[in-house]
Amino acid sequence: MMTFTPLLVLELASDTKKEAIAWLLSRMRDQQQNGGAELIVEQLGPGVSTQEKENLNIFLVGASRQRLLSGAEEIGFFKEFKDGSMRAFTCTNKYDFKDFKGDGDSFFSVAECQYIIKHELDTLRAKDETHVPGYTQAKLYPGKSLNDIRHYYGEGQALYFGFLQYFTFALVPFAVIGVPYYMFDWEGYDKHVVLAVFNLVWCTVILELWKQFSASLAYRWGTLSRKKAFEEPRPGFHGILGFNPVTGREEPLYPNTKRQLRIYFVSLPFVLLCLYLSFCVMMVYFQMESLVLSIHDEDPTFCSGVLLFIPSIIYAVVIEIMNFIYRYAAEFLTEWENHRLESSYQNHLVLKVLVFNFFNCFASLFFIAFIMQDMVLLRQSLATLLITSQILNQFMEAFLPYWFQRRRNKMMIHKVRKIRTLEDKELPLVEQVRLETYMSTYLGTFDDYLELFLLFGYVSLFSCVYPLAAVLVVLNNITEVYSDAFKMCHVFKRPFTDPAADIGVWQLAFETMSVIAVVTNCALIGMSPHVKAYFPDSETQLILWTVAVEHVLLAFKFILTFLIPDVPKHIQIKLARLEFESQEALKKKKMLEASELSKTIQ
Amino acid sequence: MMTFTPLLVLELASDTKKEAIAWLLSRMRDQQQNGGAELIVEQLGPGVSTQEKENLNIFLVGASRQRLLSGAEEIGFFKEFKDGSMRAFTCTNKYDFKDFKGDGDSFFSVAECQYIIKHELDTLRAKDETHVPGYTQAKLYPGKSLNDIRHYYGEGQALYFGFLQYFTFALVPFAVIGVPYYMFDWEGYDKHVVLAVFNLVWCTVILELWKQFSASLAYRWGTLSRKKAFEEPRPGFHGILGFNPVTGREEPLYPNTKRQLRIYFVSLPFVLLCLYLSFCVMMVYFQMESLVLSIHDEDPTFCSGVLLFIPSIIYAVVIEIMNFIYRYAAEFLTEWENHRLESSYQNHLVLKVLVFNFFNCFASLFFIAFIMQDMVLLRQSLATLLITSQILNQFMEAFLPYWFQRRRNKMMIHKVRKIRTLEDKELPLVEQVRLETYMSTYLGTFDDYLELFLLFGYVSLFSCVYPLAAVLVVLNNITEVYSDAFKMCHVFKRPFTDPAADIGVWQLAFETMSVIAVVTNCALIGMSPHVKAYFPDSETQLILWTVAVEHVLLAFKFILTFLIPDVPKHIQIKLARLEFESQEALKKKKMLEASELSKTIQ
Repeated sequence: MMTFTPLLVLELASDTKKEAIAWLLSRMRDQQQNGGAELIVEQLGPGVSTQEKENLNIFLVGASRQRLLSGAEEIGFFKEFKDGSMRAFTCTNKYDFKDFKGDGDSFFSVAECQYIIKHELDTLRAKDETHVPGYTQAKLYPGKSLNDIRHYYGEGQALYFGFLQYFTFALVPFAVIGVPYYMFDWEGYDKHVVLAVFNLVWCTVILELWKQFSASLAYRWGTLSRKKAFEEPRPGFHGILGFNPVTGREEPLYPNTKRQLRIYFVSLPFVLLCLYLSFCVMMVYFQMESLVLSIHDEDPTFCSGVLLFIPSIIYAVVIEIMNFIYRYAAEFLTEWENHRLESSYQNHLVLKVLVFNFFNCFASLFFIAFIMQDMVLLRQSLATLLITSQILNQFMEAFLPYWFQRRRNKMMIHKVRKIRTLEDKELPLVEQVRLETYMSTYLGTFDDYLELFLLFGYVSLFSCVYPLAAVLVVLNNITEVYSDAFKMCHVFKRPFTDPAADIGVWQLAFETMSVIAVVTNCALIGMSPHVKAYFPDSETQLILWTVAVEHVLLAFKFILTFLIPDVPKHIQIKLARLEFESQEALKKKKMLEASELSKTIQ
Repeated sequence: MMTFTPLLVLELASDTKKEAIAWLLSRMRDQQQNGGAELIVEQLGPGVSTQEKENLNIFLVGASRQRLLSGAEEIGFFKEFKDGSMRAFTCTNKYDFKDFKGDGDSFFSVAECQYIIKHELDTLRAKDETHVPGYTQAKLYPGKSLNDIRHYYGEGQALYFGFLQYFTFALVPFAVIGVPYYMFDWEGYDKHVVLAVFNLVWCTVILELWKQFSASLAYRWGTLSRKKAFEEPRPGFHGILGFNPVTGREEPLYPNTKRQLRIYFVSLPFVLLCLYLSFCVMMVYFQMESLVLSIHDEDPTFCSGVLLFIPSIIYAVVIEIMNFIYRYAAEFLTEWENHRLESSYQNHLVLKVLVFNFFNCFASLFFIAFIMQDMVLLRQSLATLLITSQILNQFMEAFLPYWFQRRRNKMMIHKVRKIRTLEDKELPLVEQVRLETYMSTYLGTFDDYLELFLLFGYVSLFSCVYPLAAVLVVLNNITEVYSDAFKMCHVFKRPFTDPAADIGVWQLAFETMSVIAVVTNCALIGMSPHVKAYFPDSETQLILWTVAVEHVLLAFKFILTFLIPDVPKHIQIKLARLEFESQEALKKKKMLEASELSKTIQ
């Protein structure tokens, strides 16, 4: 049986040579002085099913408490000090940290312990430039509650859930304001302008306050001031061997100009072509729509009534298929662009997928709003798109995969029962680990953020036409929190933690959306008949006024963004104090050294 | 005679008590161990004129070479290392720095030496919370050439001259393109759009490239990576004594809410009121203008012809007076807002003055362009304003004060000749120092940048109406370089150096101007008759197209700003390498300490 707490599972390809495994294990177990990782590794015993294809090269990896502490110091985790400030953890003064009690048993979260071990494995590889065959997977103990996401899944995941909840609460006042507009059918110049200005201020303020909120969270988690280690090249990166100009280490190099050429002459035209295709599909949809409408108008029967839904359904299905194919193409292209860093790869992938998804989701709405200028149809389409996409999404991303996994689980219990008797419903560790091999791999928070981004678009872009959208999104988000949590615990293998300090490129994406929202809302208000009534003689005057108001609002928005600081004042002071103290300490140390030197000379 | 190189002149009020002076001098001369500054101080002998009012409390301050080196280490100057990278200077490995030769005689620039001494005097004061009576002035050795501005005046001044020269060169292609437009009277849709797009791309690219250029300069000067010391409160700051939350030192505290109230409820309304007043003055000017025109049209005589110029002259004079009064009011208000930091004070002052000057300079042009829509008048006004303001400016800021100082110089030489015979035309040091006491104090680069900012406005805002503006500004800038250099050397006391890494808030101001320029140029093109001819039936269509193009251009501009990195790639790599090496060194040191500790235990 286990004599240590296993923290991650290492699965090597089943055809890995025995010598290679033995060497790797010795490297992992060896003492640090000898260049090893000083970890505890134990092979997982065979499962109940004695099939030929079963992989025996599965290892459970853990570490002694002392090893975890020294690893944490190496990484530079920031922890709460006795005086309430956040400081980089060091083993020598470990008892000065607030939560360090006894032998530091629960000082680090499970996520942090896992990150330490992953870091050790990664540096082991980096030091010897060896490729660890197979891949590492962490999937033990799927959590049963959402109590401490950060403790279990790490900061990246916790920030996503934090953002989801923040976003939901932030939408509540907007939803509250939207209800009377919908109920009493409020329309008119003044009311629209009030709503648009509220929308603008709201979008700007919540995005700025989120920055402050996430900075506070990251400060408390110790990821805000933690210095990032130099990013190693991502696994797929290839090139001619050379010397890295920063680290001086030997690693593949790939000229930046070549990458730029690939981006601007292949990826960019490809994205534009896809957008054009998507545009064509949309035009076909509108033609089908008008064709069906004319058939229905000529001779309205039950059949023609059903026919009315056909174009929308076809369009929705085609869009889903296009998104699916495009996603693969985008991943392929971004891989082919050969980015050195994982972060740069992610940014380029996010940008590609974002533009296409934005176009697919909103192009038809833009067309209805600004070319057809049919506000009733816009409201209908918006509601339909919002509701159906959300139901489909939650079904596809959580419940369907769960159902598959549940079936596998039952089959496994059945198999085990054939051999041994099971007292409780929980499987033994060996079987549990083998079962979880079949779980899907969680590909990061990308899809989750994308979903929130599109929801944000539905709420903000056409808010003055359909204020009820906020209500729908709030309701959706409440179920989303649970379905996402469920998905993380029961559907996916537990992902590696990601010590993030903010939501990264998504902050920019949301801010861009809020700028576009100002433009669309101003245009929508300018087009409303109530506003047109104020300028009965001159359409030119109306447009000029609309444009002027839009520019003023945009300028106001930028000033507002500028005025609200990104990091809250009290965190700023704490960071400044830390910096000041370290400078003072350095000064004192230097003076001490100098006086010692002078003594030695005398 | 002098036995050391005097680096700055300390002038105490002539009625300072002798005990205070003796105490201060002892503090300045005392060894560092005893808390002194370890500087060399010598009293300046009396001058030739034995007038009663002459101040005898003038001291020349210098320092030994060893003292300068240790001071430089304390401040943390970055210097070029043997391997070409920039590292923080330390005395222990001073010979590893590239330019350190012999006893390090010319290793630090004069500006840096001066900064070190100023820093020592400032910390002397800060340590004991004592007020040095009087004020420090550095004014020795006015430079004779522009060869090494940075060496003599420090980075802040050098960056200004760098920007001035960069800006001039950057304008050249624009001037070259503008000439044929003016010569052949090119007008028309396509040509205007080409010019506008060029204008947009040019503005964005030069501002981004300037950031790169200034980062390269600051890297080579060692100010880019130098950590800023904690800013002490500025001299005028007052409040109730308390403890600074960052440093824990006792210093005046002033609640931020109180400051915010003063800003939003006094300063902001005051600025708005001034803008309204300025608007009224402008309206009076236009009424006078039309009145004079009608008189001239009725009965055109020589007198009425002269009368035509009167309103412009009155308006120009009134604007100058208003700018002058407003400047004092803005300084008073910003002082009253009681900012803790000099940088925050500067930002608020710049913002106030900038808005008012922008309005005064361009409001009449905007009125002519968009309300009167008279392009011929716009071109005329632009040219008149540009040329007259530049000539006046250079005359007022350089030649007039120079003339005064020259007169004083001649009088001093005359006086000296009465007593002794002078072989050469140079005055003895004692007389030179006393003479320079009368020179004006240079108030920082504020006015110089403001001038460039307004010039940039003249070029970019109406570039498609008057492309020749760029040519005029290029010509002006060439003389401006010389008049500014002249002014710095012969008119003002030498200012203290300011180890700046960028042009600060002015970068933002120039970028804002370039955004406004996109809007104005699009509007001007939309109003041109050639473009109107493309939309003969519908003015609405024309406006919608103009607005659409403007939005696309603005979006393009933001993307361009985003794509061009602020720090050039090769500097980024150097900074990353420095960071990496310091991290590695820290790791190695920790491991060494740990192994020593384990040895001790064994």
